[in-house]
Amino acid sequence: MAAPSDEEGAVGPRCQHRAMDTLDVPFLPFCGFLGTLGLLCVAMVGTWCQHWRGGFSLDGSSRTFNWHPVLMVTGLVVLYGAAALVYRLPNTWSGPKLPWKVLHASLALGAFVLTVLGLAAVFSFHNSQGTPNMYSLHSWMGLGTVLLFSCQWAAGFGAFLLPWAPAWLRALYKPVHVFFGSSILMLSVASCVSGINEKLFFSLKNGTTAYKLLPAEAVFANTLGLLILVFGVLVVGALARPSWQRPDSNSPDSRQ
Amino acid sequence: MAAPSDEEGAVGPRCQHRAMDTLDVPFLPFCGFLGTLGLLCVAMVGTWCQHWRGGFSLDGSSRTFNWHPVLMVTGLVVLYGAAALVYRLPNTWSGPKLPWKVLHASLALGAFVLTVLGLAAVFSFHNSQGTPNMYSLHSWMGLGTVLLFSCQWAAGFGAFLLPWAPAWLRALYKPVHVFFGSSILMLSVASCVSGINEKLFFSLKNGTTAYKLLPAEAVFANTLGLLILVFGVLVVGALARPSWQRPDSNSPDSRQ
Repeated sequence: MAAPSDEEGAVGPRCQHRAMDTLDVPFLPFCGFLGTLGLLCVAMVGTWCQHWRGGFSLDGSSRTFNWHPVLMVTGLVVLYGAAALVYRLPNTWSGPKLPWKVLHASLALGAFVLTVLGLAAVFSFHNSQGTPNMYSLHSWMGLGTVLLFSCQWAAGFGAFLLPWAPAWLRALYKPVHVFFGSSILMLSVASCVSGINEKLFFSLKNGTTAYKLLPAEAVFANTLGLLILVFGVLVVGALARPSWQRPDSNSPDSRQ
Repeated sequence: MAAPSDEEGAVGPRCQHRAMDTLDVPFLPFCGFLGTLGLLCVAMVGTWCQHWRGGFSLDGSSRTFNWHPVLMVTGLVVLYGAAALVYRLPNTWSGPKLPWKVLHASLALGAFVLTVLGLAAVFSFHNSQGTPNMYSLHSWMGLGTVLLFSCQWAAGFGAFLLPWAPAWLRALYKPVHVFFGSSILMLSVASCVSGINEKLFFSLKNGTTAYKLLPAEAVFANTLGLLILVFGVLVVGALARPSWQRPDSNSPDSRQ
């Protein structure tokens, strides 16, 4: 360990440990908070589409489009976040790893299925309205995120669940999988908030409901966007927090 | 260190080390790549505003608005990213820390000044056009990001540069400062891409320049948005990479 530097040299290990203890949020209550926040995001995006945007259908109208935000927030943000955090549960740190791998892969697969259905909803709406697909920055980054997610799932399945991947390949790929795990969540969140922003400009145009007059729907959906941001930042922060990682994950044998 | 788990138990330390060596990107060339990418983003946002949006002025017109994307991308993303990476330079790991702290704080202050000028540009444009401020999700998250940044800078200055902060307070605050450092960058990037998306919908409305027909400007600005995302993800990834952190930053004395 390097010697303490000039300004911070005065703080001894005992004092630093006290400071760390004060900040040491326990993981499980934090997870409970994150779960509540995630469910709140899902409930709010559902309420937005049901209450202000006309509800849901499969007829190619704007009510078909409404599945898009609901499925993307539920799959690509909340369920994806839950899948990403599986290995931070202290229960996963000892004993057989296979059941936890299967849980991680299953949650991620569930997130991916919802995401693909969410894409199908928006493509179906555009096609039935004669609107071009894939022109906005939101659509480019959203589709890019889903493509990265599909590669991440397939490569993770091939490297960590199929029995014939050699150990050196797993060790080589693991830090790449971890890096893309957090990166895809950041891209998902950026895609969701740009999509909510875009949808509000499309939908709130006239009279007293104009977006710039901040009607109730705008305040509600803006708040939803901020909560999605907070959820994403907290999940990425939790993934990066050293004391919540597997005790061996930072050792020289397994760090990048 | 925990024992290797079932599936990965077969990989010995020697084999893992070989795998890690293969992946061990050196920091300085990576920094050079990031610097080039950051400069490309600045050049592209300047080109977009100069070539397609009419250039720059201070008369309250849309040419005043054009300072907003240029200053935000330059300050809140690129210069902020440079400030965040200062402590990943191996030169900062030994010897007096004060000069590096001053460099970190100065780059962050430069980023903050550009950001405030960027806010002034958009408020000035809105006020001279009679457009309300602060109604879109983009504006809410953008202003929230700048407010967090101002708190981060002031608290960092007070805790790490002023001489009277006690050592226990520095130790307590350091992980909080590190967490918000990455989080603010994620929020900045999400704000920038939602802003570019919004601006393209505002500006590209008519005839052959409609956004949905993907004119050259749309392809150019969408590409800029994707490059900003890549820059942000790479900086946040570099900050989280264990082998690029100060050798003592993950020890029990200084981890969160």
